[in-house]
Amino acid sequence: MPNRRLIGQPGSRAALDTPALVIDIEAFERNIAKMADYARARGVALRPHAKTHKSVACARRQIAAGAIGICCATLGEAEEMVKGEIPGVHITSPQVTASKIARLIALNRAAPRGLSVVVDHPDNLVALDEAARQQGTRLAVLVDFSAGLSRTGCADADAVLALARAAAAAPGLDLRGIQSYSGNLQHIAVRAERARRAQEQRAALRRILTELRAAGIAVEVITGAGTGTYDLDGDDKLFTELQVGSYVFMDVDYQRALLDGSNAPPFETSLFVAASVVSANARGYVTIDAGLKAFATDGPVPEVAKGAPEGSSYQFFGDEHGKLILPDGAEKPALGSAIECATPHCDPTVNLYDVYHVVRGDTLIDIWPIEARGKR
Amino acid sequence: MPNRRLIGQPGSRAALDTPALVIDIEAFERNIAKMADYARARGVALRPHAKTHKSVACARRQIAAGAIGICCATLGEAEEMVKGEIPGVHITSPQVTASKIARLIALNRAAPRGLSVVVDHPDNLVALDEAARQQGTRLAVLVDFSAGLSRTGCADADAVLALARAAAAAPGLDLRGIQSYSGNLQHIAVRAERARRAQEQRAALRRILTELRAAGIAVEVITGAGTGTYDLDGDDKLFTELQVGSYVFMDVDYQRALLDGSNAPPFETSLFVAASVVSANARGYVTIDAGLKAFATDGPVPEVAKGAPEGSSYQFFGDEHGKLILPDGAEKPALGSAIECATPHCDPTVNLYDVYHVVRGDTLIDIWPIEARGKR
Repeated sequence: MPNRRLIGQPGSRAALDTPALVIDIEAFERNIAKMADYARARGVALRPHAKTHKSVACARRQIAAGAIGICCATLGEAEEMVKGEIPGVHITSPQVTASKIARLIALNRAAPRGLSVVVDHPDNLVALDEAARQQGTRLAVLVDFSAGLSRTGCADADAVLALARAAAAAPGLDLRGIQSYSGNLQHIAVRAERARRAQEQRAALRRILTELRAAGIAVEVITGAGTGTYDLDGDDKLFTELQVGSYVFMDVDYQRALLDGSNAPPFETSLFVAASVVSANARGYVTIDAGLKAFATDGPVPEVAKGAPEGSSYQFFGDEHGKLILPDGAEKPALGSAIECATPHCDPTVNLYDVYHVVRGDTLIDIWPIEARGKR
Repeated sequence: MPNRRLIGQPGSRAALDTPALVIDIEAFERNIAKMADYARARGVALRPHAKTHKSVACARRQIAAGAIGICCATLGEAEEMVKGEIPGVHITSPQVTASKIARLIALNRAAPRGLSVVVDHPDNLVALDEAARQQGTRLAVLVDFSAGLSRTGCADADAVLALARAAAAAPGLDLRGIQSYSGNLQHIAVRAERARRAQEQRAALRRILTELRAAGIAVEVITGAGTGTYDLDGDDKLFTELQVGSYVFMDVDYQRALLDGSNAPPFETSLFVAASVVSANARGYVTIDAGLKAFATDGPVPEVAKGAPEGSSYQFFGDEHGKLILPDGAEKPALGSAIECATPHCDPTVNLYDVYHVVRGDTLIDIWPIEARGKR
């Protein structure tokens, strides 16, 4: 960890051993406060998604700002959050194999206030119930509704109802509620369209909730929404809690999607990759030490944010390198100089790093581990 | 590490905690032997590239088969290889910043038989020379020639010559040779075109070597070539050593590129991602637990290899999930069942995992750490 010695040194942000993942702590804290204020004002709970940051330090700050717990996409993330004593962990993907179920039940016993997991299939429900009973524990489950994305989740109201009934009757399970996450709506770049589609999804969910109530099945928790629909879904008050994730960091894709006409996106970019110029022999560009292994490649390209002439752009240039293309006539950044880029898709970008370099202004102030990086 | 208990159990390959990265040891060993035999027959040395496997266990097997050393793309990889007592480490990317140079010189002192690094700029050469002298050591350098890719490396013969002269005269440096790696040719899918372009690049390199000799500068090492041009470049005998990487694993992209008419590619796919079916409520597809965080996304999509009906295909379905699309009328794989996919681009895929699960046939036989994963 060659960067630890830089903590507290003025100007250290531009002297990091690169490539390095950087959090601008001021923007990060403003994002956390803004979402917490929104939720408080609307009377909706927050259980932010750790799939974005994968970090106990980040989760602690969300809890300190009033979040009631943390969502996790993988069991491995949940294990790290429980180890970090984060309360109220909810796992948003089904845990199906024998190996995962054994780990889940062990974690459920270790979690100080239990945890919850989604279920979307009767066979999985039976397996969870049996495993919980064998270990003399009870497991809280939420029935997953596919919410238009159909990645996981029950396909229709009948399936939700049948599964909810089975969960309510299973001695090893507690039916906690319903999850309905429309991941496919979050990045729709036209707000009116995003609003229309989110409303449709909520209408489908409302019909299901009406049927559940008619069947005498109590539903305590209704969880869903993401950074793209947080206020659209939150204002409607159907969800009891929001599982927003990316708002803490934002990324190139979300900043574009959440532009609303002339209105700036509601959250700030707080996550950057710091790189260095490592080759400068070509005309019109320099090569930096951040490539396919430094950024997620499933979204847009990184956006040059710092250290390069205005109008510079980025192209992937192999596993270890990026091409920093300079505008006509611009002076080349010097060999060895520091460049920062906003990240294309924050969640899988974070998954490429072991630590966050936390900066305040131009000074490195802390290094936080990314405990759940690569944890499945 | 829930999979360790499975080592030696028949059938354990289909019971792994997923997603997991799998090496088929028999195909892997055949690939290593085939390349070693080729090099031996041609009288060219092998210094295979660790950027592919990032693993001391893999490097040891290459050395045992006759390789004279190992190439590394990052200084962090080189640190792990030296820690693993791998001899003959060569770093194929320029190390430029003050932090990297300090680490490099420290590593050079620690490496039992020294190491080498490329240089492509006079300022970097001066900095390396000064750092080596200050620490009372000598550092072996290879002048990097851009070889048509222009990612790193000197742009022309004059620049190579000037840098070679300066290196030969620098008291802290040993001029070891020339690197000329045409990364942009390796994946060209038509062999005749790949051959023509590789020949052009070697012709440019030959002219430079002639000028160097005329200037009285001795060049011991000429390193280059990759899995796509290993025999094209190797047969020509210009290079003294080949820095091939992907041949140990192969991937979807290389298997397609190295098809030569009706001839099968020369190496076998030995690397797979094992996944599990985690949701099966939709028509025509199931959801598996391997998505954007389980595969590199810069190349083609993963290829379904095992556990699914013939003709099944893969689509990315978010960070944690993939859509396994079934052919018309095919029976769905059961919830929880094991699926394997060949990887799209092996090097950045490997970078997403902490360990290899080594299988012989259907049995897990070992787990190897990927020490240089994420090491910069």
